[in-house]
Amino acid sequence: MEFYIPTKIYHEDNAVLKHGSEIASLGRKALIITGENSAVLTGALDDVIKVLEDNNTESVLYDKIEENPSVATVMEAADIGRKYGADFVIGIGGGSPMDAAKAVALMVQNRDTPEEVLYQPLGLKSLPVAEIPTTCGTGSEVTPYAILTRNDIKTKQSISHKIYPAIACIDAKYLDMAPSHIIRDTAIDALGHLLESYFNANATEYSRLLSINGIEKWAENKNALAEKEFTKDNYNGLLFASTLAGMAISHTGTSLPHGLSYYLTYNKGIAHGRAVGVFLPGYLYLMEKNSIPGCKDIISKMGFKNTSSFKEFIENCIGYIPFNEEDKENMVKEIKDNPKKLLSVPFEAKEDDIREIINYG
Amino acid sequence: MEFYIPTKIYHEDNAVLKHGSEIASLGRKALIITGENSAVLTGALDDVIKVLEDNNTESVLYDKIEENPSVATVMEAADIGRKYGADFVIGIGGGSPMDAAKAVALMVQNRDTPEEVLYQPLGLKSLPVAEIPTTCGTGSEVTPYAILTRNDIKTKQSISHKIYPAIACIDAKYLDMAPSHIIRDTAIDALGHLLESYFNANATEYSRLLSINGIEKWAENKNALAEKEFTKDNYNGLLFASTLAGMAISHTGTSLPHGLSYYLTYNKGIAHGRAVGVFLPGYLYLMEKNSIPGCKDIISKMGFKNTSSFKEFIENCIGYIPFNEEDKENMVKEIKDNPKKLLSVPFEAKEDDIREIINYG
Repeated sequence: MEFYIPTKIYHEDNAVLKHGSEIASLGRKALIITGENSAVLTGALDDVIKVLEDNNTESVLYDKIEENPSVATVMEAADIGRKYGADFVIGIGGGSPMDAAKAVALMVQNRDTPEEVLYQPLGLKSLPVAEIPTTCGTGSEVTPYAILTRNDIKTKQSISHKIYPAIACIDAKYLDMAPSHIIRDTAIDALGHLLESYFNANATEYSRLLSINGIEKWAENKNALAEKEFTKDNYNGLLFASTLAGMAISHTGTSLPHGLSYYLTYNKGIAHGRAVGVFLPGYLYLMEKNSIPGCKDIISKMGFKNTSSFKEFIENCIGYIPFNEEDKENMVKEIKDNPKKLLSVPFEAKEDDIREIINYG
Repeated sequence: MEFYIPTKIYHEDNAVLKHGSEIASLGRKALIITGENSAVLTGALDDVIKVLEDNNTESVLYDKIEENPSVATVMEAADIGRKYGADFVIGIGGGSPMDAAKAVALMVQNRDTPEEVLYQPLGLKSLPVAEIPTTCGTGSEVTPYAILTRNDIKTKQSISHKIYPAIACIDAKYLDMAPSHIIRDTAIDALGHLLESYFNANATEYSRLLSINGIEKWAENKNALAEKEFTKDNYNGLLFASTLAGMAISHTGTSLPHGLSYYLTYNKGIAHGRAVGVFLPGYLYLMEKNSIPGCKDIISKMGFKNTSSFKEFIENCIGYIPFNEEDKENMVKEIKDNPKKLLSVPFEAKEDDIREIINYG
C-alpha cells in the first residue's frame, strides 16, 4: 500500500497572511485563478494580493472560471499565463477554480502543447500550485485531480496528469461569506469522498485511516448541516473533514456516486454536491446488501441508526432532484461505457447494481 | 496547524523490488549507507543492489555505521560519497543508518562544508534520500530528523536541517531476521514517539490523528511483544505503528522521555528503545497528575487498566536498567541545560517534574 500527500498544508486562522512568504517563494510571477465572485467576497483574493505585494511578487488575475470549468476556459487562462510568463499558479475558490488552477499550471509549464495533451497520460510536470479553498467539500487543495467539463464527450473527467498542490492554505474565515446551501452541498460532496473512498476496491489501511477519521469529524458537524446554522468550529471541522476526504480519495479515487453524478451535473445543471448526494444512500445500501465489512461501523460513526435514516438526512439536505427513466438509462450507459468506475466497487459490480443505486428509495 | 509528510511511502511485500525503478530514478550514482550486519542479514541490501543493477544505476557501499552514529562516522561516509560523485543516498537499517543517511546526504550535497554545518540552522538542501527500515521503531523513514552522537557535548542530538526522505520502502520480511529483543526495544521506541507526540505542547488535531491511530495499531500487537512471538501480521502492524509514530513526531518532536534517554545511551550504553522505555511510565504518570486531557482514553487504547499496569508491562519488556543518584542529577542537569525539551511538555514543567518522571515507581 502507498501513502503520498506531498502538499504542505496550513489549516489555521489567517493561514494565507501567516504563510504568504512561502506562497510567494514558489516563483516570481503568479497567475491567480478564481471564479467571478467567491474569491473577492470572502476576502481571500485580497489576502493573496497583499502577501504577493509584501513579498515583491508580480501577479496577474484570471477570474472567469465557471462552475464545472471547461477545457476551453482552462486554455483561455493558460494563454494569459503563457503570455505573462507566469512561473506559478494560485487557485482560490471551490473545486472549480482549484481544479482549473492545476490544469492551467500544466498547460503554462508545457507552453507549446495543445489542449488534447490534458487527456493524454504523458506524466508531464506542471508549474507549482498553491490552493486556497473557500468551500468545505472538494478537497482539491490536497488531491492530484483536476476535473474538467469535456464538451467533446459530454461529461466531466479528471485530466490524465497528477498534479499535487505544493501548498494549501485553509482558513475558516473564508467560509463565513458562503450561503448556507453551499456549505451544505460541499459538505455532502466531502461525505461522498469519505464513503466512496472507504467502500472502495482500492482502499488500504492508510486510506481508511483517513476516511474513518474524516467521517468522525464530519459527524461532529452533522447537526449544524441539518439546521443550516454554522459556528466557526463547524467550519473548521468541516474543512478538516473535507481535507482528510481529499487525502483519502488521492489514494483510492471515488466510486459510483461520483461517476453517476456527472450526468446530472452536465445534463441537468445539478450542483456537484447535490448530484453526488443523490446516490450515496443507494451506494451504502448496495454495500450492506453485499455484506461488505464496515457498514454498521460506518453508519454508526456517521451518527445514524441505519441506511434509511441516512437517506432521510441526505434527502433533507439536497432536496428534490428531478430525473426520469430515460435519464436513468443514460446514466447506466455512461458507467457501462467507462467500466473503470465499476472496478472501484469493492465487489464484482454488474449493470443491475448501478440500477439498484439509482433506484434505491 | 500544519500537515507535511512529503515522503512517498510504500509498505508492502517486496516493496523495494516492486518500486526499484523509482528508487533508481532518484539519481545516477547511489551511496548506500548501512550498519555492519542487518542490511546483509535481512536481505535488504541484496534487494537494493538488484534493483540498482536492473536499472543500470551505479552504487558504492558504506557499511560502517555504528549504533548511535557519530558525527565523525557521518563525515567519513560523506567523504566517500563526495569522492564517488554520489547524487543520491539510500539508507538501510534501523534508526542509526537511516538517520546517518540523511546527514550524509546533506554533507555530500554541500561538498565543501565542514562538519560544524550539521548543527547550524542554515536550511541547506540535501541529496535525495531513500530509506529502507529493518526495525519497527525509529520512524526515521518518514521523519526529517537525523540524530547523531556529538562527542563534543557528550550527548545525542538531531542535526539542524530538516531532511525528509523522498521514498520509504517498508517490507515486513526484513524484520524476520531480527532478534526478538530488537523488535521489542524498537517497538517501545515507537510507543515513546506516539505517547510523547500525543502528550506534547506542539500537538495538533493532525498530529493526534496520527498518534492515536498509531497507538491503536501498536496495542493490537502488544501481546506479541509480551510473548516475544511474532507473526508477519505483527511485523506489519508494528511497522505501520512506527511509521505513523514517525509522522506524528515529524509535527511535534518528542518530549522528556527521549530527552532523558540520551544520557543513558551515551553514558551507560543502554539501547535507545530501552532507554526511552524507562521514562514512559513516569511521563504518563506526570500527565495524569497534572490532569492533562486524554490520559484515560490513551491508557485504554493501549489496552492497560492504569498507569501501574503499563509500568509493569514496560519493565517486563526492557528489564533492569542500572542508574544511580548521581546519574539522576546528571539527567536533570542535561534537561535544564537544554530547556527547549521542557517546552514540549503540555504544561509548564519544572525541575521537580523531571525528577518525578525519573523516580516514578
